[in-house]
Amino acid sequence: MRYSKTITGLTGGGSDGWDIYRKARRMQRDGTEVTMLTIGEHDIRTDAQILDALHRFAHAGHTGYTTFDGEPELKDRIATRLSERTGVPTTPANVLIVPGGQGGLFAAHHAICDPGDTALYIDPYYTTYPGTIRTVGAIPLAIEARPRHGFQPQPEDIARAADAAGNARSLLVNTPNNPTGVVYTRKTLEGIAEICTDKGLWLLSDEVYDTQVWNGDHLSPRALPGMAERTLVIGSMSKSHAMTGSRVGWVVGPEEAIAHMANLATHTTYGISGYIQHAAAFALDLGPAFEEQIAEPFRRRRDLVMAQMEGQNAARPIPADGAMYVMVDIRSTGLSGEAFADGLLDRHHVAVMPGESFGQAAAGHVRVALTVADDLLVAAVARLVELAAELAAQHAEPAQ
Amino acid sequence: MRYSKTITGLTGGGSDGWDIYRKARRMQRDGTEVTMLTIGEHDIRTDAQILDALHRFAHAGHTGYTTFDGEPELKDRIATRLSERTGVPTTPANVLIVPGGQGGLFAAHHAICDPGDTALYIDPYYTTYPGTIRTVGAIPLAIEARPRHGFQPQPEDIARAADAAGNARSLLVNTPNNPTGVVYTRKTLEGIAEICTDKGLWLLSDEVYDTQVWNGDHLSPRALPGMAERTLVIGSMSKSHAMTGSRVGWVVGPEEAIAHMANLATHTTYGISGYIQHAAAFALDLGPAFEEQIAEPFRRRRDLVMAQMEGQNAARPIPADGAMYVMVDIRSTGLSGEAFADGLLDRHHVAVMPGESFGQAAAGHVRVALTVADDLLVAAVARLVELAAELAAQHAEPAQ
Repeated sequence: MRYSKTITGLTGGGSDGWDIYRKARRMQRDGTEVTMLTIGEHDIRTDAQILDALHRFAHAGHTGYTTFDGEPELKDRIATRLSERTGVPTTPANVLIVPGGQGGLFAAHHAICDPGDTALYIDPYYTTYPGTIRTVGAIPLAIEARPRHGFQPQPEDIARAADAAGNARSLLVNTPNNPTGVVYTRKTLEGIAEICTDKGLWLLSDEVYDTQVWNGDHLSPRALPGMAERTLVIGSMSKSHAMTGSRVGWVVGPEEAIAHMANLATHTTYGISGYIQHAAAFALDLGPAFEEQIAEPFRRRRDLVMAQMEGQNAARPIPADGAMYVMVDIRSTGLSGEAFADGLLDRHHVAVMPGESFGQAAAGHVRVALTVADDLLVAAVARLVELAAELAAQHAEPAQ
Repeated sequence: MRYSKTITGLTGGGSDGWDIYRKARRMQRDGTEVTMLTIGEHDIRTDAQILDALHRFAHAGHTGYTTFDGEPELKDRIATRLSERTGVPTTPANVLIVPGGQGGLFAAHHAICDPGDTALYIDPYYTTYPGTIRTVGAIPLAIEARPRHGFQPQPEDIARAADAAGNARSLLVNTPNNPTGVVYTRKTLEGIAEICTDKGLWLLSDEVYDTQVWNGDHLSPRALPGMAERTLVIGSMSKSHAMTGSRVGWVVGPEEAIAHMANLATHTTYGISGYIQHAAAFALDLGPAFEEQIAEPFRRRRDLVMAQMEGQNAARPIPADGAMYVMVDIRSTGLSGEAFADGLLDRHHVAVMPGESFGQAAAGHVRVALTVADDLLVAAVARLVELAAELAAQHAEPAQ
């Protein structure tokens, strides 16, 4: 039987860059103790008070269909939140509730891109980005943000890609950034905004790490002049409130975009569980102190890892200003990120993600997820630094 | 700013047939007591023991990411269920967990139809069908199942439509049927199976009402010879276990189809809440007695309504063999379903869905949803019959 070209082409063919991850999982199943610094999943569970609220809302009768755009109580809180945090006046009519950040990425691309259109995104990228673009039949085109620019995308590169494509409709950015831990500067975002306006592009802004900014405040590009009308912000409760498995997030944008995406929701999810939406509203009411408490371990671990890497040059961390990752440059070893990660896993049972898992731009790097307890993390990073030093020394002195 | 043609074209333009529903809701908001026999939502809430199980699973730590195809425990129970109920050997590799039946309809069409392909479906139809097909860029083509055939689709009509389209890839059927309450006969399904095989079509079989069969047993077309390899069954916990708002369902089909749709899930939902999936597995373990208890009110109300309509000819019910609806022929009144429903709402504050809301084939009919308490239902149907008799008499005697 024949399948659609769209679905058979989703993964784009070739390696998906997750071989190391799968190998680590196999080793775990076979009884080896592996420190997993691979995926961006909280090591803390959803708070009991949120789960208890969910239970109360379920028993109170929120077990039927909901409106397709989302429950008014949750839309209202998200509108208030974005108004307060970004200064952009935002009403519930600007908010669509979706099944997590990924559901938002899908809905946003569906609303903007037709089959055959080009959708731009930045490399290094979160694993699902190109596939999400292919899911709506559009053509993903990556723009490299290079190590020499501190992984900040360069507006002229974006302009060049848009011109080359000819039919580019959207640009997807993510700040704070997964996988690099980099936060885009105001200058970077202003440059991006200018290009989007010049080239008539929608800006899709994945801000799921907006509570994990370690220096200064989060800057949403929707707040830049003229950008509210052409920006779709994707947010989620997964990182900010450790509600990963509840699959609840939002898209914020112009009313017309939200109305179109509500139509889409009628045909994809038929709305999001009411008891989950009310639990999410309860979680947002816990306020900034709760969010800081959720973010705190990652800030602490980021500081630990950055300090631990000082005073050596074999494994050079990219300054991590946000999100739950530290990207480490191991090009001193002469190895690819894949080869280095493979060696680290084999010799020290520490699993990190090769930079190559996230595109071309982070080749020769590995990503360390800050998602295990501090002592395990410190021990694992010590092994990583040790291995990098050893391999860099070998690389510097040609073999006899 | 420009939106995709796909999303702006989702609703197909024109009236969506829900004007009566919206008018009834407005009347309710304005303080009028309206008996709502419109939408297919249970009047019973999700059982407390299921909600308590969900709470236990959430507290036990099922609050992180899940595998994209679904939790093994739930896939296993659904595989066993379909094996037992249909006789078709089914393994967990044949099962994908989706966000409710609608999520399954979307995934199935995405897996089969490329933009520009034709997807067939039967009129009268569930409201979201054509939009779901448009969501993946395919072209919906309706095939009428006519009142004179008891709303059983005729295989020769399907063959003719497939030939005319030239690029038909799939046929979507729904038995027990919403909106007609009709259950497709074995002969109908065998005819459909033959046409699908002859024309190389996938059969998408929406079986969300499979526990609501009032005469005999449910027959899944996947169980017919040679059909397992070309059938995708869509199922859900919404109707069978009154878990509407939990948004959990499945697609069952060939392993290759499931693998493709798991890739899709990575890019649309990123998996379904683990605590919901485990609660669904718990609900399935409650067994057939629980399912019969959930279905019982609809069986009872269907019997009440059918009995109530005996002995008159103005409002003629279509024999309802399944699902939670009775379709009523009111052509004796000379009115459209819309005009009759509007009059019933204005004069008696009873809201039913016009047949025209579900396509062309059920024009001159209204659908009565069996989703309110027995006494309210009986009183409302009495008004319906009374109005039909009055209007039919007027229609028979030309005005002076």
